[in-house]
Amino acid sequence: MRIAVVAPSCPLKPEAAEAVRALADARGDCELAIHPQCFLSAGHFAGPDEARLAALREVMADPAVDAVWFARGGYGSNRIAEAARSDLPDAARSKTYLGYSDAGFLLAGLHQAGLEAVWGPMPQDMVREGGEVAVARALDWLVRHDPAALEPALEGPAMAFNLTVLSNLLGTSLEPDFSDVDLLIEEVYEHLYRIDRSMFHVAASPAIRKVRQIRLGRVTDVLPNDPDFGGDAADIVEQWCTRSGIAFGGRADIGHDAANKVVPFGRTA
Amino acid sequence: MRIAVVAPSCPLKPEAAEAVRALADARGDCELAIHPQCFLSAGHFAGPDEARLAALREVMADPAVDAVWFARGGYGSNRIAEAARSDLPDAARSKTYLGYSDAGFLLAGLHQAGLEAVWGPMPQDMVREGGEVAVARALDWLVRHDPAALEPALEGPAMAFNLTVLSNLLGTSLEPDFSDVDLLIEEVYEHLYRIDRSMFHVAASPAIRKVRQIRLGRVTDVLPNDPDFGGDAADIVEQWCTRSGIAFGGRADIGHDAANKVVPFGRTA
Repeated sequence: MRIAVVAPSCPLKPEAAEAVRALADARGDCELAIHPQCFLSAGHFAGPDEARLAALREVMADPAVDAVWFARGGYGSNRIAEAARSDLPDAARSKTYLGYSDAGFLLAGLHQAGLEAVWGPMPQDMVREGGEVAVARALDWLVRHDPAALEPALEGPAMAFNLTVLSNLLGTSLEPDFSDVDLLIEEVYEHLYRIDRSMFHVAASPAIRKVRQIRLGRVTDVLPNDPDFGGDAADIVEQWCTRSGIAFGGRADIGHDAANKVVPFGRTA
Repeated sequence: MRIAVVAPSCPLKPEAAEAVRALADARGDCELAIHPQCFLSAGHFAGPDEARLAALREVMADPAVDAVWFARGGYGSNRIAEAARSDLPDAARSKTYLGYSDAGFLLAGLHQAGLEAVWGPMPQDMVREGGEVAVARALDWLVRHDPAALEPALEGPAMAFNLTVLSNLLGTSLEPDFSDVDLLIEEVYEHLYRIDRSMFHVAASPAIRKVRQIRLGRVTDVLPNDPDFGGDAADIVEQWCTRSGIAFGGRADIGHDAANKVVPFGRTA
């Protein structure tokens, strides 16, 4: 299996690239093609919009590529997501697209366009503590659809998003159809008051109110709230679900950590 | 003129309350009724949702109150805004509602319900450097509609919002009709990558694309972007306007500072 790595958001760390290449080589069941665009740098981004878009469209159009693996999150995939899924070449339709965090903008848009979008660990996770396990999990899914890679409580069509990314794609052309979907959310590096505000926004959306249920993944590196917010992230999410008539389905095994599991969009178990 | 002060978001600092009361007393043209709810505290908020809502609804329903002045921003008015403008008593319709920042959730919802919503300085601004001038400006508008208090380039119907607040009210029941409005935005205490993401979200909204133009107020206390973002807030706003077919009308004289001017919602100059 040939897996192309591109960076639609921020640059991939060279040490992460080397480590993930070594991991793939040792497995012997997949060939990684790490696009040189991954190491470009232009301000916040892994190269200008044009370069990130060109690399993504190049690998999408390549019939020899079986999967497109987003190198990392950060911020920036939203700036090219609309253009990435316009005038789709045929070869783009027979691939899997894997990533999470900021890559959620792309997953949403690609899924909405009928492509196979999957939430899961990314190459940059190699430099996370215990990250080798996370990256191996992603490859286990891409290469042989290993059921052990999946979020363990998936029961029907599902999607997974970082909460802030989800909030920022609502109402845009990237917004997918959430009807009857189990919506898994997680968050990292936010204050609780911001999580509350994002949940207000998300739970107020008529599109979101069509979900079957919301489940909450891990909320990590929460920034200190001054004063103490009064409640934790799970309280916040459950409260907004209740206020908005959305079923809260408990916790989910996703997050910005090495235990982050795979969630294929729209998959029926 | 009787002006009621309530705190739908975070608690008012007692020293700000004392100073604004002294300022009003010295003017002799208005009477401030600072509701005791302003000093409640419950986690992040100026009392629980129920208490903040009850105080707001109490002053809205009071025929002796000519204006409702939101004590300060922070976060939390969104949690009570929908309930605040339901079953409106008649007395609520003959008042002015003044505030900015987080109070934008209320301004949006109240304006949408046909009430007189105005962006402008708040009592807590007294503890800001030079804040006495800002607070006097708000009172000059409330008491005698002093044209010197107005944002100087208002040409027609306008609205003003903090960018993050605006992003988080889109698609909710609070969203007002932006058609042919001059939309003034400002931001404080955000990273440039977050400003870019919020502008992506806002500029993608079909509701926002109905504005006559967007003008940018001050963007202050910008948090350090790592790496350097590549461009400033004005570049970002202008770029998203261009990409989205929204006219960019240049700068606006609003912001989280003592120079912050008054913008009556929907006012035709």
